[in-house]
Amino acid sequence: MRTVDLIQRKRASEELSPEEIAFLVNGYTAGEIPDYQMSAFLMAVCFTGMTDREVSAMTESMMNSGGMIDLSGIPGVKVDKHSTGGVGDKTSLISAPIAAAAGVVVPMMSGRALGHTGGTLDKLESIPGFRTDLTPEQFHSQLAEHGLAFIGQTDEVAPADKKMYALRDVTGTVDSIPLIASSIMSKKLAEGMDALVLDVKVGAGAFMKRQVDARRLAALMVGIGRRLDKKVQALITDMNQPLGYAIGNALEVMEVSQTLHNEGPEDLRRLSVELASRMIFLGKVTKTLEEARELAEKKLSDGSAYKKFKQVVELQGGNSQALEKFELLPNATGMREVTTSRAGFVSGINAEDIGRASTLMGAGRDRKEDAVDPAVGVILEVKMGEKVDAGAVLCRLYYTQESTLDEAAEMVEDAFKISGQKPDERALILEVVS
Amino acid sequence: MRTVDLIQRKRASEELSPEEIAFLVNGYTAGEIPDYQMSAFLMAVCFTGMTDREVSAMTESMMNSGGMIDLSGIPGVKVDKHSTGGVGDKTSLISAPIAAAAGVVVPMMSGRALGHTGGTLDKLESIPGFRTDLTPEQFHSQLAEHGLAFIGQTDEVAPADKKMYALRDVTGTVDSIPLIASSIMSKKLAEGMDALVLDVKVGAGAFMKRQVDARRLAALMVGIGRRLDKKVQALITDMNQPLGYAIGNALEVMEVSQTLHNEGPEDLRRLSVELASRMIFLGKVTKTLEEARELAEKKLSDGSAYKKFKQVVELQGGNSQALEKFELLPNATGMREVTTSRAGFVSGINAEDIGRASTLMGAGRDRKEDAVDPAVGVILEVKMGEKVDAGAVLCRLYYTQESTLDEAAEMVEDAFKISGQKPDERALILEVVS
Repeated sequence: MRTVDLIQRKRASEELSPEEIAFLVNGYTAGEIPDYQMSAFLMAVCFTGMTDREVSAMTESMMNSGGMIDLSGIPGVKVDKHSTGGVGDKTSLISAPIAAAAGVVVPMMSGRALGHTGGTLDKLESIPGFRTDLTPEQFHSQLAEHGLAFIGQTDEVAPADKKMYALRDVTGTVDSIPLIASSIMSKKLAEGMDALVLDVKVGAGAFMKRQVDARRLAALMVGIGRRLDKKVQALITDMNQPLGYAIGNALEVMEVSQTLHNEGPEDLRRLSVELASRMIFLGKVTKTLEEARELAEKKLSDGSAYKKFKQVVELQGGNSQALEKFELLPNATGMREVTTSRAGFVSGINAEDIGRASTLMGAGRDRKEDAVDPAVGVILEVKMGEKVDAGAVLCRLYYTQESTLDEAAEMVEDAFKISGQKPDERALILEVVS
Repeated sequence: MRTVDLIQRKRASEELSPEEIAFLVNGYTAGEIPDYQMSAFLMAVCFTGMTDREVSAMTESMMNSGGMIDLSGIPGVKVDKHSTGGVGDKTSLISAPIAAAAGVVVPMMSGRALGHTGGTLDKLESIPGFRTDLTPEQFHSQLAEHGLAFIGQTDEVAPADKKMYALRDVTGTVDSIPLIASSIMSKKLAEGMDALVLDVKVGAGAFMKRQVDARRLAALMVGIGRRLDKKVQALITDMNQPLGYAIGNALEVMEVSQTLHNEGPEDLRRLSVELASRMIFLGKVTKTLEEARELAEKKLSDGSAYKKFKQVVELQGGNSQALEKFELLPNATGMREVTTSRAGFVSGINAEDIGRASTLMGAGRDRKEDAVDPAVGVILEVKMGEKVDAGAVLCRLYYTQESTLDEAAEMVEDAFKISGQKPDERALILEVVS
């Protein structure tokens, strides 16, 4: 088997066999196939795509490229949740505690902020003392005893994906549905979960700009799960405007706490409850989805979910007082208001622009090795469809450095569209793929 | 300027500016842009193509990436000839001496065999003693005094092309019209020629399988020449069956000598004369192409072209006696006949299969660093359209190693198609692009 022949066949839109896909993935992981051949192959995939059989083979090869986490010793269905990445998307910090409070075992393995999208680990680490670098033993025992633990991906899991993702990042090949699907699923499958709820974001602030692409991605991941006997459900949800009002690590933790106290934004609460309901249903705690929804609502409104979250924060070394006394969280040193010069209806809040502005201020990272500033970010004052007067505050920027503030403010201003007519209402949950 | 952004824009079919193309080519040549980014870029080009402006910018950047050969001190128009590569294509060894005998200055810079196609340098080196590694001074003075010299590409010329070609070779990105055009033209332009006659091969034995692609490639190269004030004419010629009867280095030299003695195959003679005529016309030796054709015919039939070739062989250290006493050329140790089991008309001789069989026997190379066996190859006994009886010899294989013979013989057998009906005649020279 010659790598160049496989590249050429993929370029010609031919289907590669599972053995050929494994040859590429294993050879690349072992350093026998050089970066320049893999990047050419990946670019060819961006254009010619992959069949379902190829995507499954790719996923399995990546899944098997390193160690697998074994959670089979813990009783119950282990249900994970994954979002394809959005702006202001802090649902994991709400739906995981709800599901855990309802009795689901939730091994929450999350990522970090990259580009304009945030990351669960960075948000959690804005809580003073919070540690996401649990040892496998700590993770296992916390999960067994308390049903919820937050952890980052370990280096041992799916090293092929890690290496390929780093290559895709610098070769313009991130944006490919089969590559995204196999990357997500290989990690999730290696992490020992039994079932998975996916939140596939679509819109200006998401990697998928078009609903048809989001649907294909969702269907592909659900299909990979099915072929490997894992229950996977996907929600396709709107990411044209940020979710909730807060964007930025500590700011989002505050909004999480408010939501867990039944004082959060309606869109964030609704989506978190729906995701939690699916987790509860796939976790076989209830017989029907309807019962799962009732249970999720109950666990949120009666404070059990907050209690679970607070407990886990403490278990992982965090100062849980910061969840109520926000002054204990990292605080920005300055605030600037962004106002509108014209009156009208908010007809668009480009989530990607808001995310980029927030990243520019330090809340996110452009490169993996960058540090994030936990204190900074954006708080929206309005959401789509709201009426504003001229001079009204659209949002507030919380900053610690002046140097990038003007540019960030300009970006944020550009993100808002104010028009004379009230825009049509947009559904938050667009589709379910299962 | 970030390389990944340029890759992404090319992936999205956007046009890059000349500055952006130069950034990529120069950065890659200098080692600042890694192989894996360039290969992703090249693969994107394979799918989205390049505009004329991009191809010209790419060509110029590659042309300027190293030293330029200066032939301006030699009086007269310097005319080079280039073939995109075929099987049995030894026209350079005939048309260059004809043109030189007619008074054109011909700096013949050639390549080596690769894949199933032959290379002029390998053919010449089958003449005992022949050296193609002239110093720049030797090359210059031989050209000034005798009007013809054969030389390989120097390392100084177009290093960007050399580096990119090596990368394309292992990443499945060879086969791209804009990449082929800029590769050929950057070298030719850096080599100091004033005018260029191109032989763009099309058919089973050529890189271009379809005439429409050959036409695009030809037009692109003629256009690049025009933008840089160089006269370029291209013939599009048939490469469905091998040219002439001989395939293999020493075997082809014999056929060259026969042709220069007016005893060669009709197709080889006709194409060689037409190419030489274009060289004579672009070299401004005659006012019209018609006059150039008459002159070319004369220089071939009166023996001047042979005399010129013999002289150059001697000048470059070759034993010119071998051009008449073929036993002085490297000789194969064995011969095997390939016969037909059925009677009928020869309706196809797949040139690529014949080329591959010849390469397999040792006449060519799969990798740059392989050595070639000058003695081996194939002599066709029939050409397309001829009638054969059952049991008739289709061709003879000349070999030195038994190990690959059976496989080569099988390939050659598969190359011949015998059918009941006489096939339509096919034109050899299909189009002129100028």
